[in-house]
Amino acid sequence: MQRRGLLIILSSPSGAGKSTMAKRLMAWDPSLKFSVSATTRAPRPGEIDGVDYQFTSKAEFERMVEAEEMLEHAEVFGNFYGTPKGPVEAAMMEGRDTLFDIDWQGGQQVRRSTLAQNVLSIFILPPSIEALESRLRARGQDSDEVIALRMSEARDEISHWAEYDYVIVNDDPDQAEEELKTIVKAERARADRMPGLNDFVRGLNKEFEARQIGARS
Amino acid sequence: MQRRGLLIILSSPSGAGKSTMAKRLMAWDPSLKFSVSATTRAPRPGEIDGVDYQFTSKAEFERMVEAEEMLEHAEVFGNFYGTPKGPVEAAMMEGRDTLFDIDWQGGQQVRRSTLAQNVLSIFILPPSIEALESRLRARGQDSDEVIALRMSEARDEISHWAEYDYVIVNDDPDQAEEELKTIVKAERARADRMPGLNDFVRGLNKEFEARQIGARS
Repeated sequence: MQRRGLLIILSSPSGAGKSTMAKRLMAWDPSLKFSVSATTRAPRPGEIDGVDYQFTSKAEFERMVEAEEMLEHAEVFGNFYGTPKGPVEAAMMEGRDTLFDIDWQGGQQVRRSTLAQNVLSIFILPPSIEALESRLRARGQDSDEVIALRMSEARDEISHWAEYDYVIVNDDPDQAEEELKTIVKAERARADRMPGLNDFVRGLNKEFEARQIGARS
Repeated sequence: MQRRGLLIILSSPSGAGKSTMAKRLMAWDPSLKFSVSATTRAPRPGEIDGVDYQFTSKAEFERMVEAEEMLEHAEVFGNFYGTPKGPVEAAMMEGRDTLFDIDWQGGQQVRRSTLAQNVLSIFILPPSIEALESRLRARGQDSDEVIALRMSEARDEISHWAEYDYVIVNDDPDQAEEELKTIVKAERARADRMPGLNDFVRGLNKEFEARQIGARS
């Protein structure tokens, strides 16, 4: 039965396993579309336009914001980042889900957008702050100062957990993946996301009429 | 993590497999409580008080309605039927789910009750009206007149499908059972049904404080 595609928002502090969960979800269901952000910042070596980011001029970005073609957008250190609405809407109408790896600010904007009815938002919590810090340190790429900044950002991010439909405590990645898949499967079945049900019930009613069965009331 | 129990409402026209689905769900998770209705009608041979129904005097039933101790109630052919709120509320607070096998009218009342936030409602549709009629006839216990009445009631019942959170088309009972279990598992994980999350995040914040990590903003 034809359904509307979901906008699946995954948020978490960095180090809580959001990117791993996003990759696992994409591997489980290759029909998922990963939302590629637009940005006005210059590409870094190795970054591919349309894959890592959609690289955009500042003028074009501003035009899109003005024309309400951005689902959400933010400015970070003088650069703009945002999610173009067009591809998300197209996927939605085709019944394909789009996966968003965004922070609470992006999540809030998408949840307040015109596509709000099709949003499924999931927050991933670390099992403890100690575990979060270990994971950040295990990456081995950041100085103590950067780790301290990430931890402070984590506290900000975590403070928004209650705005999400679902919360997963990522203690064990396999179990967290199972929870995530269960949530996605169930939410896909929600009646308000199945416009095809209307036609199906219309068909049942035609059958009732063909058999001359009226309602009692 | 401690969660509130759900009020799981299963509705469908008779013959669409609601009772089978309820039995399968109870077999899958024996912690589910099946909601036993109270009634003022006399017990039939073999019916056990507290199992089939909670048999109640008319005066006691009226007192309960008056005292708002009924989650929903209705009068059918001069007899009263209703769901006492007490056991449902107790199960909810203990984190146990209650399963309701009720029609759209009962569903509507429960969905409008003070326990509305914890309701999960699922409607089961037959794959076709032909299949519905075959199933009713296959029971071999009803006259043509009773079948005609059931079919007319089915049309009433089906007209309320869109009031439910989820709709399952019961073409294959095994698949319908899988869908049902997926829905229940996911809904149990919803953030607004996990009051324990509050304490968990409070714990994370204490850890942040012990490490002297403030929020940026």
